[in-house]
Amino acid sequence: MSAFQKLIAHSKKVSHFDHLASIVGWDQAAVMPAGGAEARSNAIAELDVHIHSLMTQPHLGDLFAQAEEEPLSINEKAELREMKRDWQQSNLLPEALVQAQSLAGSKCEHAWRTQRGDNDWTGFEKNWAEVVKLSIEEAQIRAEANGTTPYDAMLDIYEPGTTSASLDTLFADVKTWLPSMIDEAIEKQRSSNILLPNSHYPTEKQKALGLEVMQLLQFDFDHGRLDESVHPFCGGVPTDVRITTRYDENEFVQSLMGIVHETGHARYEQGLPKSLADTPAGQARSMGIHESQSLFFEMQMGRSQAFIEHLARLATNHFDGPEFAKANLAKIYTKVEKGYIRVDADELTYPAHVILRYEIERDLMNGVIQHTDVPELWNEKMKTYLGLSTEGNYKNGCMQDIHWTDGSFGYFPSYTLGAMYAAQFMAAMKKTVDVDAAIFSGDLTPIFTWLGDNIWSKGSLLSTDDLVSQATGDVLNAEHFKTHLENRYLR
Amino acid sequence: MSAFQKLIAHSKKVSHFDHLASIVGWDQAAVMPAGGAEARSNAIAELDVHIHSLMTQPHLGDLFAQAEEEPLSINEKAELREMKRDWQQSNLLPEALVQAQSLAGSKCEHAWRTQRGDNDWTGFEKNWAEVVKLSIEEAQIRAEANGTTPYDAMLDIYEPGTTSASLDTLFADVKTWLPSMIDEAIEKQRSSNILLPNSHYPTEKQKALGLEVMQLLQFDFDHGRLDESVHPFCGGVPTDVRITTRYDENEFVQSLMGIVHETGHARYEQGLPKSLADTPAGQARSMGIHESQSLFFEMQMGRSQAFIEHLARLATNHFDGPEFAKANLAKIYTKVEKGYIRVDADELTYPAHVILRYEIERDLMNGVIQHTDVPELWNEKMKTYLGLSTEGNYKNGCMQDIHWTDGSFGYFPSYTLGAMYAAQFMAAMKKTVDVDAAIFSGDLTPIFTWLGDNIWSKGSLLSTDDLVSQATGDVLNAEHFKTHLENRYLR
Ligand SMILES: [Zn+2]
Ligand SMILES: [Zn+2]
Repeated sequence: MSAFQKLIAHSKKVSHFDHLASIVGWDQAAVMPAGGAEARSNAIAELDVHIHSLMTQPHLGDLFAQAEEEPLSINEKAELREMKRDWQQSNLLPEALVQAQSLAGSKCEHAWRTQRGDNDWTGFEKNWAEVVKLSIEEAQIRAEANGTTPYDAMLDIYEPGTTSASLDTLFADVKTWLPSMIDEAIEKQRSSNILLPNSHYPTEKQKALGLEVMQLLQFDFDHGRLDESVHPFCGGVPTDVRITTRYDENEFVQSLMGIVHETGHARYEQGLPKSLADTPAGQARSMGIHESQSLFFEMQMGRSQAFIEHLARLATNHFDGPEFAKANLAKIYTKVEKGYIRVDADELTYPAHVILRYEIERDLMNGVIQHTDVPELWNEKMKTYLGLSTEGNYKNGCMQDIHWTDGSFGYFPSYTLGAMYAAQFMAAMKKTVDVDAAIFSGDLTPIFTWLGDNIWSKGSLLSTDDLVSQATGDVLNAEHFKTHLENRYLR
Repeated sequence: MSAFQKLIAHSKKVSHFDHLASIVGWDQAAVMPAGGAEARSNAIAELDVHIHSLMTQPHLGDLFAQAEEEPLSINEKAELREMKRDWQQSNLLPEALVQAQSLAGSKCEHAWRTQRGDNDWTGFEKNWAEVVKLSIEEAQIRAEANGTTPYDAMLDIYEPGTTSASLDTLFADVKTWLPSMIDEAIEKQRSSNILLPNSHYPTEKQKALGLEVMQLLQFDFDHGRLDESVHPFCGGVPTDVRITTRYDENEFVQSLMGIVHETGHARYEQGLPKSLADTPAGQARSMGIHESQSLFFEMQMGRSQAFIEHLARLATNHFDGPEFAKANLAKIYTKVEKGYIRVDADELTYPAHVILRYEIERDLMNGVIQHTDVPELWNEKMKTYLGLSTEGNYKNGCMQDIHWTDGSFGYFPSYTLGAMYAAQFMAAMKKTVDVDAAIFSGDLTPIFTWLGDNIWSKGSLLSTDDLVSQATGDVLNAEHFKTHLENRYLR
């Protein structure tokens, strides 16, 4: 067995334990009764320790050195690159730092769950100081290994290959046109009448409708399920993808489009290359590419006229209110509003929320600002980008997200990168696929074939830049996103 | 840290992986889509290998030797005994035998799933020959280690301390009175009119009724759930017990009493001693004692007049047919019938099915008979015990159970031991608890307090004999079972 083959075998072994972690993680979020939490945490912690010990076995270094001397095909080289990336990530941080981070993160996040409601910045800041300090330590260790700035090293965890230099350029451009586009769209929608949800929408009916939409989207129910959880997510494993949603019986808007979004994530997972199953190269390319698939489903396809017509038609199987008329559904799903909360934001204002966070976390990790500067910076940027003040309003300001409470700095850009990639994929797809005709027909196969061929089946064999270039003929170009938004909100 | 403490820490580590195995096992049976099976099997196999490697770590032998020299309390000695028992069981069999058994068992069981329907003894016998051969090898290795007969060594896996000598005595007695008691009961019921299920019983309503019954039985929903699976079982972990049932919309009889049965298993698990959590002494005593709890719930309590009245009352919340009248429900749940199939057997004929299997598997493991002798022996014994011929009828004869297909010889006696223990516990409980009054009142707490104090909270600290003696003042005495059956079926 060659060193490369030994590394593949090792990856598969680790992947089997990752499988267990995914399934018990799903269970914890979707079905576990509260009283099971403590014992479950202990079991998961034991599993994490075991996975970490597998990833840090001393003989792996030699195997990587040997494998790099072996004659490998192009794909095998990519497989080796991804395995090595995973291995390096697992071996970079000192055990003591990882444990301190886990402790500080849990403490901060746990307290945040009540502090946020109490608007208690002072209390939060005390715990958060430690989280930020440890994350900066992490960022500096990673930066040294990668030869980048600290923030870029954090970004690299979620978006390998993406740099803040490129994000600065991208976002600087967006900032030139986004605020005025938001104002124009709001002005344009001012006179429009929307019938908002105003009835009782039973969970069972919402679920039945959601399942029909998943079928339209060709979710493979032989390799996945739909369930419920407080925070919707896409989990499980590629052969058994678990998506969740949350039903609110006073409205249907969130759960319905939430299911479309998670189905996008799910089909990416279900479409990953089977030949690379259980190895790093067989996994999704990055968080941004993952989000590009969910947002392709939710925003590019899901909010198209043709798709909204399907939603309206399927809704009549379960509901009969005039709020489900296609014209009204279209208005609901394209309503633009300036708000404080990112997770409630519409497609058009969402990038403003992300850019704001990006600029703050970049400067925080690079030591340009202190964590105590964040509320004021947040307030300033909210006023600039969305015209809203968050002075003294921490709970709807810098304390609103969970991401920073446990030190996940570098994640936020993935959301807007995903939206941009999605727009670029749609533009490229339209060169060869009659997308609207496919959606109208109800057989969306041509769309999924394009995504399968160009994105899903590639796993992590290509770098993000190569993946996007080969699929669209261009590296990331935010013009497609801008054009998409203009067409939808200003025409 | 003493050697004893090191062993406890090791047990807890293993237990965390057992936790994962339980939860993904539940998932596989209750919610996993079919397409997830292969990847899941690989993940579970990897986990099994890891647990086995933990249990066979070379340093454990020294730790056990050291711990046995350490000053330990009585409870600690019991904990050590149970840890050592687990360790010995894991280290007894050569790896090659375990793998050969796993392979032969899977092959035989898989083929059996179609061969049974085809009544294909010839095909089955070819695969089964290997399973039996390997099980005899296993039994002989265990026998040598235990200093017992091969069959007794198999029995010891499920019922530590129980011997075929004691079972021979017990069952010889049962055989003297059971066949005539069955005939008498059937004769007595001959003129009785029963209204059998004759309507449509929607799953949702059956489930709602089942949940109400579980509440009456004080199932702790903060530490457990009810779900569905093809083969009902009680799984999960003590802090999160997962019971399942199967709904047939053409009847309600099986799922309703099935839930009572599994709730008995569940409350035992939920009542195990928290201070011994994650260690062998904190687990259920034996399969027979486990079954004694489910059968206490299902047979002793569940078929009592007082309990049937609750079922009839709760049923009116969901159903209104006359079949739910208490007198009719009582008749349904105490109907005696001679049949071929163990899993469909009533309380009174069930022991005949078990004794027949016991006698055959005992002689098979001890080399007294060959596997090819089984159909004829089965036929003879069925004729003797239940007056039914299975000549040429393999599918309803010796091919009906899954247990023997993968070599689980020694398990069957647990069912009837459980029924006997249950009767003895009820007789003992009635000395200090007014059981019928408690059930009538709807507050079953005194019953559960007795079971909790005498059985559940003991875990595996006591031997089965000591557990039963301390709880009832006597070792296992089948007279209680006989008296119970006489009272129910002949009075
Ligand atoms: Zn998403
Ligand atoms: Zn049982």
